[in-house]
Amino acid sequence: MIKTHGYAAQSATSAPAPFDYEHREPGPKDVHISIDFCGICHSDIHQARNEWGNAIYPMVPGHEIVGTVKQTGAQVTKFKVGDRAAIGCMVDSCRVCASCKAGEEQYCENNALVLTYNSRDKEGNITFGGYGENIVADEDFVLKVPSNLDPAAVAPLLCAGITTYSPLKHWKAGPGKKIGVIGLGGLGHMALKFSHAFGATTVQFTTSPSKVEDAKKLGADEVSLTKEPNWHAPHVGSFDFILDCVSAEHDVTPYLALLKRDGTLCTVGIPSTPIAIHAFSVAAGRKNFTGSAIGGIKETQEMLDFCGKHNIVSDIEMTSFDKLEEAWDRVVKADVKYRFVLDLKTLKSK
Amino acid sequence: MIKTHGYAAQSATSAPAPFDYEHREPGPKDVHISIDFCGICHSDIHQARNEWGNAIYPMVPGHEIVGTVKQTGAQVTKFKVGDRAAIGCMVDSCRVCASCKAGEEQYCENNALVLTYNSRDKEGNITFGGYGENIVADEDFVLKVPSNLDPAAVAPLLCAGITTYSPLKHWKAGPGKKIGVIGLGGLGHMALKFSHAFGATTVQFTTSPSKVEDAKKLGADEVSLTKEPNWHAPHVGSFDFILDCVSAEHDVTPYLALLKRDGTLCTVGIPSTPIAIHAFSVAAGRKNFTGSAIGGIKETQEMLDFCGKHNIVSDIEMTSFDKLEEAWDRVVKADVKYRFVLDLKTLKSK
Repeated sequence: MIKTHGYAAQSATSAPAPFDYEHREPGPKDVHISIDFCGICHSDIHQARNEWGNAIYPMVPGHEIVGTVKQTGAQVTKFKVGDRAAIGCMVDSCRVCASCKAGEEQYCENNALVLTYNSRDKEGNITFGGYGENIVADEDFVLKVPSNLDPAAVAPLLCAGITTYSPLKHWKAGPGKKIGVIGLGGLGHMALKFSHAFGATTVQFTTSPSKVEDAKKLGADEVSLTKEPNWHAPHVGSFDFILDCVSAEHDVTPYLALLKRDGTLCTVGIPSTPIAIHAFSVAAGRKNFTGSAIGGIKETQEMLDFCGKHNIVSDIEMTSFDKLEEAWDRVVKADVKYRFVLDLKTLKSK
Repeated sequence: MIKTHGYAAQSATSAPAPFDYEHREPGPKDVHISIDFCGICHSDIHQARNEWGNAIYPMVPGHEIVGTVKQTGAQVTKFKVGDRAAIGCMVDSCRVCASCKAGEEQYCENNALVLTYNSRDKEGNITFGGYGENIVADEDFVLKVPSNLDPAAVAPLLCAGITTYSPLKHWKAGPGKKIGVIGLGGLGHMALKFSHAFGATTVQFTTSPSKVEDAKKLGADEVSLTKEPNWHAPHVGSFDFILDCVSAEHDVTPYLALLKRDGTLCTVGIPSTPIAIHAFSVAAGRKNFTGSAIGGIKETQEMLDFCGKHNIVSDIEMTSFDKLEEAWDRVVKADVKYRFVLDLKTLKSK
């Protein structure tokens, strides 16, 4: 077994604290990764605090993982010791359903998706994520990291990156398309970078005048301040696709009105309260309201390769395990530009 | 001017009563139709009672119109006197926006859609619908009626027919596809007929055990009784497309779970209260929630021609103007199989 030191939440009300645990001994197809960096995702906090009602404790959060291959099983072909490697939100799936076969493992139809943490593997063992020294996973769920990118800034690509890249690709963001991004945080700033890199005309919607300049730097052709009167008037009926990156409760009706006929509004912010849709808002113009969850492994690799080619990473603020609680509090307040990344050295030295 | 006798609502609280009014003298492209039959649509009642808040009085309802051409303008090419002709929900649009040019006039982007009644034409005159002897409209918005079909039973095709035909075609109902229909009323019974005729495996969802046999006769391969325990279990993740024909408030969450990855739930029932969508319900499987409104003129003609070829009409109950209030009350109670049609002879003889 791979003895590992990390940080775990032991209950919904206790802050993550040092914890020793084990990963399985690598099997023939497994890769043992020594973790270098792990992004902090808002879902780490939701799950550790059991805000989604599905918590398994002890919980070692973290699904934006970049590290170095330390050991490989006999049948591993994609990696060798010393390679940079990454793991995102999932580490296994049924592999035989239509979605898995289509490379959309995140939509596994046999309820066999194994998440990187707060989940159980096929043997029933709790999975432990990136807030620890090591991780062991089947190479089919391990990603290659372009060597030209800063590995710390790559970490958030594994969740915030693919979560925005996948729907933008699926709904064909590109030249000639007008794309909206609602909310400028961890997800939104990646959506801006991708939509811009795909060549789409990109409009950022934000409530914060202070974010206008940042949005433009990140790739927005235009910024719409949604607290201004008549903010939506110039955009009615003009968008092909709008990616809604806001997790707080908000009214989507005005955004549906901004879509062209047959346009799509997609939530990746995934608010926890139901979203109210007026039937007329979708029937008038045959508009679609949808959502999207991360992306498949093949598409995640495609996204990382795209990032390597276009020099795209996340804008990050490095943090350490001794400041984890403060970082979490700031994530909840959306006080970070735009993603915290834990440096695992700050754990190993403790 | 074309003097016309019909029935009009004079306020939200007064029942439709005899009313004399005028249609414009036919212009060069106009067709003057002597109305033979008019279907009763639930939206006639909603609008006459101002339940949608957009009523213009006096209101002569009716947008499921079949009649006989009485007079044609000098430039009319599609019709000659004595031809059977039909009019649906709209009689004009801007004709220059992207939607109009695409033959999707119902989604006219210049707010220039002229509805058959409870609307104003380009001159600002109130439009009067099918609850009267005559109608005058530009031939571009007049449909040809296949000669082999019962003209009374054709009338509801102009709204209930195209409203279900259009989304089933748009989302590609056909062989190899599994299609659901929620609700068996005026819309639902047409959806069943079309989905079956398109060759799709078709499942009717209904709360009423009494409707099972009817649904099967109308084209359902299977009927799911949604008040039974675990009714949804056999169908989870199996539908390509579900057409929701229910206008009463209801929970769509269970139906979203019945869709395949990338499947679509489309409302044509258009409930008046907002529909609550849980973000996870759409994000898990990238499912779409949408709506659809009638269909364009070109598609309406295609639908009528399809009905002629496949011998499809609406199941109707004939009624008369002296029983109009009773018919409306029964529509509100969903007590009709499946559409009332007014015989205009019962007006002319008064």
